[in-house]
Amino acid sequence: MALRQLTINQKRLNDHISELAKIGKIGETGVCRLALSQEYKAGIERVKQWMEDAGLQTRVDHFSNLFGRLEGKNPEAPALLIGSHIDSQPYGGQFDGTIGVLGALEVLQTMQENGIQPDIPIEVVSLCDEEGHRFGKGLFGSRGILGKLDEGELERTDKDGISRREALQSIGCDPDRLQESKYPKDSIAAYLEMHIEQGPLLETADQPVGIVNGISGPLWLTVELSGFAGHAGSVPMNLRNDALLGASKVITALNEIVKQEPEAPTVGTVGNIEVFPNARSVIPEKTKFTIDLRDIDKDRRDRYEHQLRDKIAAVAEENGLDYEIKEDTNNSPRYCDPNIKATLHEEAGNMGLDAPELMSGPFHDALIMADACNYGMIFVRCKDGISHNPKEFAKAEDIAIGTELLLRTVLKMATTK
Amino acid sequence: MALRQLTINQKRLNDHISELAKIGKIGETGVCRLALSQEYKAGIERVKQWMEDAGLQTRVDHFSNLFGRLEGKNPEAPALLIGSHIDSQPYGGQFDGTIGVLGALEVLQTMQENGIQPDIPIEVVSLCDEEGHRFGKGLFGSRGILGKLDEGELERTDKDGISRREALQSIGCDPDRLQESKYPKDSIAAYLEMHIEQGPLLETADQPVGIVNGISGPLWLTVELSGFAGHAGSVPMNLRNDALLGASKVITALNEIVKQEPEAPTVGTVGNIEVFPNARSVIPEKTKFTIDLRDIDKDRRDRYEHQLRDKIAAVAEENGLDYEIKEDTNNSPRYCDPNIKATLHEEAGNMGLDAPELMSGPFHDALIMADACNYGMIFVRCKDGISHNPKEFAKAEDIAIGTELLLRTVLKMATTK
Repeated sequence: MALRQLTINQKRLNDHISELAKIGKIGETGVCRLALSQEYKAGIERVKQWMEDAGLQTRVDHFSNLFGRLEGKNPEAPALLIGSHIDSQPYGGQFDGTIGVLGALEVLQTMQENGIQPDIPIEVVSLCDEEGHRFGKGLFGSRGILGKLDEGELERTDKDGISRREALQSIGCDPDRLQESKYPKDSIAAYLEMHIEQGPLLETADQPVGIVNGISGPLWLTVELSGFAGHAGSVPMNLRNDALLGASKVITALNEIVKQEPEAPTVGTVGNIEVFPNARSVIPEKTKFTIDLRDIDKDRRDRYEHQLRDKIAAVAEENGLDYEIKEDTNNSPRYCDPNIKATLHEEAGNMGLDAPELMSGPFHDALIMADACNYGMIFVRCKDGISHNPKEFAKAEDIAIGTELLLRTVLKMATTK
Repeated sequence: MALRQLTINQKRLNDHISELAKIGKIGETGVCRLALSQEYKAGIERVKQWMEDAGLQTRVDHFSNLFGRLEGKNPEAPALLIGSHIDSQPYGGQFDGTIGVLGALEVLQTMQENGIQPDIPIEVVSLCDEEGHRFGKGLFGSRGILGKLDEGELERTDKDGISRREALQSIGCDPDRLQESKYPKDSIAAYLEMHIEQGPLLETADQPVGIVNGISGPLWLTVELSGFAGHAGSVPMNLRNDALLGASKVITALNEIVKQEPEAPTVGTVGNIEVFPNARSVIPEKTKFTIDLRDIDKDRRDRYEHQLRDKIAAVAEENGLDYEIKEDTNNSPRYCDPNIKATLHEEAGNMGLDAPELMSGPFHDALIMADACNYGMIFVRCKDGISHNPKEFAKAEDIAIGTELLLRTVLKMATTK
């Protein structure tokens, strides 16, 4: 089925994906295109050029979001936004985010080529810093356009001490003019996003695409433990205040806490840790590490968070450490719009697909956009469920099928027959 | 007592210590003067100038050791070496090592001023990279002059990828001429070292100085665990290969292992850990961390090492990780020479001191020098036993008393009455 019926241009889409993957390439298949880096800027410029080639009106806002607009018959109507992000993890792959942006571009380019003007404006969006690796807080562009940045957020720094404000300036954005880049209330009709699944369910179900029914809410914390540095050869064990030993106990405990209900999809991760002074013959004085806790069941996540906070307090007490816990991100799960989901199912059926419904453990810009409008999401199968890893892989054919479904859904939502 | 009887110049010694502490100063009281860094080089040059002011013959060898020689009546006789090191920890203090070098300088300068020529040559030595922080392996200068470097040791790199070979070259040493800097067999008569205690025993005993009876043997390992990076939001807990979780279990286990005999002086530390990719929403793929295990009882240390290795294997198995353990350093405990110890006790008694004998948990260059000659060590009381920390502190008066004891011992060993 499918392939023969494709309206979109699979080769062009695939070429765009391969071409973009060269910017920030690591190893054979990986990508490192951190938000607001020079690689990120080069990526934005490349995609902007492709948007212009497709006849879209482009702009980059002060959050460093990129937009490509296809005007509607009614230019004043709220716009349909479709997209994702092109920033990556430091050790990431070439499909996470990018297929959503380049797939959306392909949808509008196909409409242009077929002379279809939509009733309402449609904008391809590449939203800045979905990943959140660099400044420890993601979904920046989507929160930005909806006026949801936190106080002091521009002063967050990366590992080299560069603030987000400086990083924005370094690629030509003006952090003092963010206000101009916000979307007025009710100016967005809906948001559609296509993304690789980043999990193994579609592969198991032997289906190229799936339809998302909701996104888990992430809780991101940063924990700091402070003890006292001392000589590793002379300070007796019972007189130590070893911050890394404390962190190790917390990391081990988190793993136990989230596995209490083995059938539940709860996940908990410590992905980042910094140790000071980090010298082999010195007892660690300070550690700072991140907690990433996710669940589709907010009550269970809250319960686990309490257990974790109690454990951190107990470990600090036991090891003579001071501690501080900062909340970086706390999102509730959000569900997709039933009408958009129904349209996605209908069009998938028309394509001869039996697309399963599934929850998303990873978050996406759609989680934020859900605050301003209805949203729908398409998942594309990826190999072994691997993501945030250079080994991440999705077949060109599967991406094309997802893009075709995106096109059909867009036509249904933005044009009159 | 003591102070009134001092022959050495306490003010000059104290000025030298304060002056040297300005090179690589961090914060109010700390020092970061990493081996072979530009700060280290500036420190060596400063001390070399002071040696020349004191009328000593100076040289810097190709290991970047600094020597200041006072010729003996018999210039062909094996030399008495006295000294320590001036390289520091990254977050270190101003007394660790330096008082041994500057105290030895003060001893020879006092002899010069008093017109005392020793029977045998005496050399003040400042031995390079005792600490071992930068390249993960210390006691470099002392091992160097005794021909005890390991194969490939010059290719070890620091955290910026700079090899020891390159670091030596960058401060003017020639790593291809190390052979010329070795001491011939039997060319060293004995080695004396004064050092801060880095522990709390002298403070508890209310004594300014102590006499070392032996040095614990350190075992240094580097452990690498390799798992698989994945998305922190989507990979189910039971499918993870989380390298940092594995490391945390090993760190916690090491702490339990070394505390099995609560009265024993065994210590075990993980001071340094690196995580890859170290990103908050990515399951850690690799960790590399150091083990520092020390004991005066080599059999017990060996037993604990076996337990630790078994535990690492079990953790790797349980978490689906590959592991590799590298041995960086493995020294046996070494005891001080009874005759030198007797001389130290006798001279301390003559000064009206009741200097206690104590073991050293930290290692020192004396541990290596013990392979080539007899050695003796003086410990100077330090506040709260704190070291490898900017808060490290020793009173000028205590250092002066230790230096006076060093002078008296040197006179006994190198001059005829």
